Amino acid sequence: MRIAILGFGSVGRGIARVILAKNLDILVTGLADSRSGMIDPAGIDIEAALARKEEGAPCGSPDIRPIDVVTGADYDILVEVTPTNVENGGPALNHIQTALQRKKHVVTSNKGPIALAYPELRVLAEENGVTLRYEATVCGAIPLIHAMQEGLAGNTISRLYGVFNGTCNYILTRMAAEGLTYAQALAEARELGYAEADPTYDVEGIDAAIKLVILANTVLDMQTTLDRVDRTGISLLTPEALHLAEEQDCTIRLIGEIVPAAGVLRVSPRIITKTHPLVVEGTLNAVTVETDLAGDLTFIGKGAGSIETASAVIGDILYIRDRYVQGS
Amino acid sequence: MRIAILGFGSVGRGIARVILAKNLDILVTGLADSRSGMIDPAGIDIEAALARKEEGAPCGSPDIRPIDVVTGADYDILVEVTPTNVENGGPALNHIQTALQRKKHVVTSNKGPIALAYPELRVLAEENGVTLRYEATVCGAIPLIHAMQEGLAGNTISRLYGVFNGTCNYILTRMAAEGLTYAQALAEARELGYAEADPTYDVEGIDAAIKLVILANTVLDMQTTLDRVDRTGISLLTPEALHLAEEQDCTIRLIGEIVPAAGVLRVSPRIITKTHPLVVEGTLNAVTVETDLAGDLTFIGKGAGSIETASAVIGDILYIRDRYVQGS
Repeated sequence: MRIAILGFGSVGRGIARVILAKNLDILVTGLADSRSGMIDPAGIDIEAALARKEEGAPCGSPDIRPIDVVTGADYDILVEVTPTNVENGGPALNHIQTALQRKKHVVTSNKGPIALAYPELRVLAEENGVTLRYEATVCGAIPLIHAMQEGLAGNTISRLYGVFNGTCNYILTRMAAEGLTYAQALAEARELGYAEADPTYDVEGIDAAIKLVILANTVLDMQTTLDRVDRTGISLLTPEALHLAEEQDCTIRLIGEIVPAAGVLRVSPRIITKTHPLVVEGTLNAVTVETDLAGDLTFIGKGAGSIETASAVIGDILYIRDRYVQGS
Repeated sequence: MRIAILGFGSVGRGIARVILAKNLDILVTGLADSRSGMIDPAGIDIEAALARKEEGAPCGSPDIRPIDVVTGADYDILVEVTPTNVENGGPALNHIQTALQRKKHVVTSNKGPIALAYPELRVLAEENGVTLRYEATVCGAIPLIHAMQEGLAGNTISRLYGVFNGTCNYILTRMAAEGLTYAQALAEARELGYAEADPTYDVEGIDAAIKLVILANTVLDMQTTLDRVDRTGISLLTPEALHLAEEQDCTIRLIGEIVPAAGVLRVSPRIITKTHPLVVEGTLNAVTVETDLAGDLTFIGKGAGSIETASAVIGDILYIRDRYVQGS
């Protein structure tokens, strides 16, 4: 099986390392990041590309842009793992559209195109007889979309809620455990690489809201947009509020919630009893799905990280291989 | 799509009710329980069969045995949901073998044949170009096998452990919460229908051990048998032991554990910190999977129940329909 990888940051390199380490019998025939690209029908030397990238050198030729790989390389699956842009989907949206039009399967970890344009992309995939998969866009390593599409097929989801952002969960865990202020806990999260220099995307609940929109549009039969998510972040939370919750054997978590029948999509800090399965520590994610047949199910795992996200992408690649490109 | 259902106890009737309630476009062309059977290529009136069963009448003709349905009915998928027999697999093993030989897909909730004969059944399915699915055999409504086979494809599982038996979990929860003795908690579980008249199968860890054997043989590339599981039940646990654990912010749970590389399979009461995601209340099941790429994942949900088990069976039926019998 042949894949082309767009994006050679932490996720793209994670995928490359897993392919090498596991002998997955996957040939990488195209590769590009924002600076350079490579196309080789016989298979790119991934180990050498990783080494160049680590030295700070371009991984390929500066003349080859990502879109050239999409249109010019020979591959079964386009693996779109460039950084998320939720304003307009960025170039990733065009990459994915172009690949689907070329009748190529697509696997992506890029939240932008899936949050903004899933209905159109799904139609495009169907028209071209190919598959679009995006497990890595929601809760990293947790196979939530697989579980909902397959294991829970036949169930009606009445409510879905959980901890969708590891950065906020880390900050709240530390505020509760050590009595830190929001600013102190955020500074600690930055030092450990859990928060960006500009933390707005995480702490104001935007990242969680995007994941809700993706779940709503892809597995909950809703048609919604980011501006319709009722959203409150954690930046105004005080240690006193957490202390009050603790006194009642509760704590506070940033909870994203969807109630499909009521059209509810919201992200907000919520008081929750400490014994609830959603009360996970550190940067973990946790999601509870309420169903009519299977009852309540909770999934807990790592929501971010290079190798964890690569795990979800690899799962999607193997899913497509086992169904659609076997023997190729 | 046409299915034949063997077994019309709580699981079989749960499946029939879901098919009716959800308009799943599934035709039931064969149906049998231990007393009677029906075959109708045009589709059996499921509602009437449910009504007869509830009145205590035979659901079909006493002359039609389950094996007659397997060999004589026209179906795409055999749904084998007769009671588990772990001594020799019981008639279910023969039903499944015969259906696979007839090139019919099989979905089962019956632990016996899967625990005893999975390698042979898989070969038989492959030789006949059909699929055998068994999600309902482990942890009821939790789509654990789906998650491990698909979402976590590409991962190596280094360890898997969890609460596999709801009856034991209920007893231990009540002993810890109320200071009940084992005998008192068991009596309560019996009253609520969570424990059988003879509780040995649950409280001695046999049920949990069978689930470990199924996971080992089906998704962990091991080849093992029930007698190789190191097994201790909960019947000798005292309230004092639980009290001592509580003093350390811990509790005791019956934990099933597999370490594939070391060949470890064991079921035993273990002391576990109360904040661990596996510490679930009541009859819930919970499983943690340790992987090389995705990190640790925990799945929590209902491990038993008529509709919950039906949910897993329906998930498998739809899985097969979407892949192999579409358009039929």
